[in-house]
Amino acid sequence: MRELKAEVIGIGTELLLGQIANTNAQWISEKLATRGISVYYHQVVGDNPGRIQEALTLSAARADLIFITGGLGPTDDDITREMMAEFVGRPLIKSEEAMKQLAAFFTARQRSMSENNKKQAQVIEGSTLINNGVGTAPGMIIPWQEKFFFIMPGVPNEMKMMMKETVLPFIRETYDIDDVIRSKMLRFIGIGESQLEMEVKEIIDRQTNPTIAPLASDGEVALRLTAKASTIDQAERLIKDVELQLIERVGDFLYGEDGDSIASAVVKLLEMKGLTLSAAESLTGGRFSDWLVSVPGASQVFKGSIVTYQNEIKTGVLEVPTSVIASDGPVSHACCYQMAKRIKEKFNSDIGISFTGVAGPGRFDGHEAGTVYIGIYQDDEHYAVEKYQFVNNREMNRTRSVKKGLEQLYYLLSSMK
Amino acid sequence: MRELKAEVIGIGTELLLGQIANTNAQWISEKLATRGISVYYHQVVGDNPGRIQEALTLSAARADLIFITGGLGPTDDDITREMMAEFVGRPLIKSEEAMKQLAAFFTARQRSMSENNKKQAQVIEGSTLINNGVGTAPGMIIPWQEKFFFIMPGVPNEMKMMMKETVLPFIRETYDIDDVIRSKMLRFIGIGESQLEMEVKEIIDRQTNPTIAPLASDGEVALRLTAKASTIDQAERLIKDVELQLIERVGDFLYGEDGDSIASAVVKLLEMKGLTLSAAESLTGGRFSDWLVSVPGASQVFKGSIVTYQNEIKTGVLEVPTSVIASDGPVSHACCYQMAKRIKEKFNSDIGISFTGVAGPGRFDGHEAGTVYIGIYQDDEHYAVEKYQFVNNREMNRTRSVKKGLEQLYYLLSSMK
Repeated sequence: MRELKAEVIGIGTELLLGQIANTNAQWISEKLATRGISVYYHQVVGDNPGRIQEALTLSAARADLIFITGGLGPTDDDITREMMAEFVGRPLIKSEEAMKQLAAFFTARQRSMSENNKKQAQVIEGSTLINNGVGTAPGMIIPWQEKFFFIMPGVPNEMKMMMKETVLPFIRETYDIDDVIRSKMLRFIGIGESQLEMEVKEIIDRQTNPTIAPLASDGEVALRLTAKASTIDQAERLIKDVELQLIERVGDFLYGEDGDSIASAVVKLLEMKGLTLSAAESLTGGRFSDWLVSVPGASQVFKGSIVTYQNEIKTGVLEVPTSVIASDGPVSHACCYQMAKRIKEKFNSDIGISFTGVAGPGRFDGHEAGTVYIGIYQDDEHYAVEKYQFVNNREMNRTRSVKKGLEQLYYLLSSMK
Repeated sequence: MRELKAEVIGIGTELLLGQIANTNAQWISEKLATRGISVYYHQVVGDNPGRIQEALTLSAARADLIFITGGLGPTDDDITREMMAEFVGRPLIKSEEAMKQLAAFFTARQRSMSENNKKQAQVIEGSTLINNGVGTAPGMIIPWQEKFFFIMPGVPNEMKMMMKETVLPFIRETYDIDDVIRSKMLRFIGIGESQLEMEVKEIIDRQTNPTIAPLASDGEVALRLTAKASTIDQAERLIKDVELQLIERVGDFLYGEDGDSIASAVVKLLEMKGLTLSAAESLTGGRFSDWLVSVPGASQVFKGSIVTYQNEIKTGVLEVPTSVIASDGPVSHACCYQMAKRIKEKFNSDIGISFTGVAGPGRFDGHEAGTVYIGIYQDDEHYAVEKYQFVNNREMNRTRSVKKGLEQLYYLLSSMK
């Protein structure tokens, strides 16, 4: 099949005012990518005649399939329908079919149709109506000079239903698409983006199918392999080959793939080793527990935690000796060790992990914001307390602490016989 | 001031593959709107030389201020720096300043700088460096034909810090912006979007400055008031007038404004009433505690929590009577009541809140996924246990539970004398 170029245009002043993000463009692009259709551009313009015409002209000059969302509502500033008609030079005509659907919509909801809504039953001559199962505005498929414009409402669930039920099947039929694209994400910890890329640069450079793209997001790095082939099997084989080469180089840092998270990797390891975990959280305030519990099945290995957000809870409930707090303070190696040891014993789990530190803003008890101790306790022969100095804001310091804790656990568990 | 036209360009193939949404464009647009700068276009292109040049040419032809995010990373597919240099026809030169900041970044994190990272210290001749407080890639302010290009990393928190600390102040100075736009968000709970809209429709309809926009996001609803004026005072007065009219109608449902969250509203009320809180979390798994701890100053009123993710912890640590679990099970009115009472007593707080239920996927102990009990206990005369049936996925059920708990607390606290 010849390569299809796609473009997504979002129309709506609310997008330019930053009141909403253009998640429609993301969703449409993702669906097209998995079908082997390349999206080269996104555009966003407001409800403005001149700029809408400009956007349409631009997209028509460079794309085969143009997906337009927004501006189909009943109000006067919704002008996508009119602008599209003007661009393709065809009149808007009243559609009995659309009118029927509109009427049905309002009857079903025992609401009466306003005059404005009737405007939504106008369709461009020569276009195909896209039924709106969820809302009032119908969409349209508009053929023009061997291209297709697809106009759909900006309301995400209305657009998604139209894409799934009408637009995507239409594209598949029209171009009998056989090409498929498969993507696989390989996830790493304990290695920076630039170091990882250097290690595998040579593989990346000689690779065209699948392509390999390094991605970094705070504290984590991943490689995305994307293969294009005529069958799913073939695409997956292409990916597998390269995956093996990569694992040979940087397999030590690989902790999971695709939807995996460090939390799910840790839960998996705990299950494999048949071990249980409990946590004592101070600055992380429950976030570590929350991340673990987000993994379905965590209840088998995670017993729970105590959030000791005040010293009296560290001593009173967790039973960290008051002498330790008195001598070393709550943000200390000694307190962190005690927290990990006590939670392990109190919850009768195989491993206890503890977090204490200063999230910020501002110093606390003589420590910089970002000073964090993380402890892992199995028994008096097997424990570790690490000190970190993060340099971010309150929320990021707390998230980094959780990630570091999970990273430490991951190393410990994967090194166990 | 002459009208400034702005444009936002997102660079990155991951955007076109739909792996992430272009939230950077939303955030930047929102910040510019509140400063009276009109954003007319968003563009997104991949890491492709030709298309990046095309996007730059287009934006330069129609905007005064061009904000570019993405493609500043250390890897080879990050080419924004080179493309920008090519476009303005100036060389990339090594910046000692940038090198110093990079070095400092790695020293602070006890990591060593890779060869790739050094590429990030290259800046365009004649540009002004934007310090990156959080990551490695510095940004640049590039003056060109009475326009300015601002290039920033795609990592949201790095971009946001650069905008707040460098770019926005720079724009304000450069154009001594006098025409200001002020926005205020009024946040409501316990009222649906359509009901709220009906209550205040008449006010919305006759309002032009400030404008009033209703916004809804899962379980919460807000009204955004946006006023344009020549002075901040004037804009704020315009907003105040309308705010008072709105409060007269729907003030009972108003819990906060702007950056407030239900969590911060609850913390504020606890401080005002001089009360302390503790939590017993089962299905929420620490998320309730995490949300509270996210509010700076929470440590004054939030003592902490116990995450009882297994029955043996409910009975062994929290000391819920085994008979209760045996007779009613962990997901029950009785267990929820006990959890709230025990945590209140154990942590010696004024109020105890408890969460137990089935997050899903799948049924548990004879209960549908989404079955949730939330208990609030002060003393044997003052307590409440509510049952809810949510219908979402695991994560949404857990989040809804936390929000409901905060909502219940908010009502209780605001009704206290």
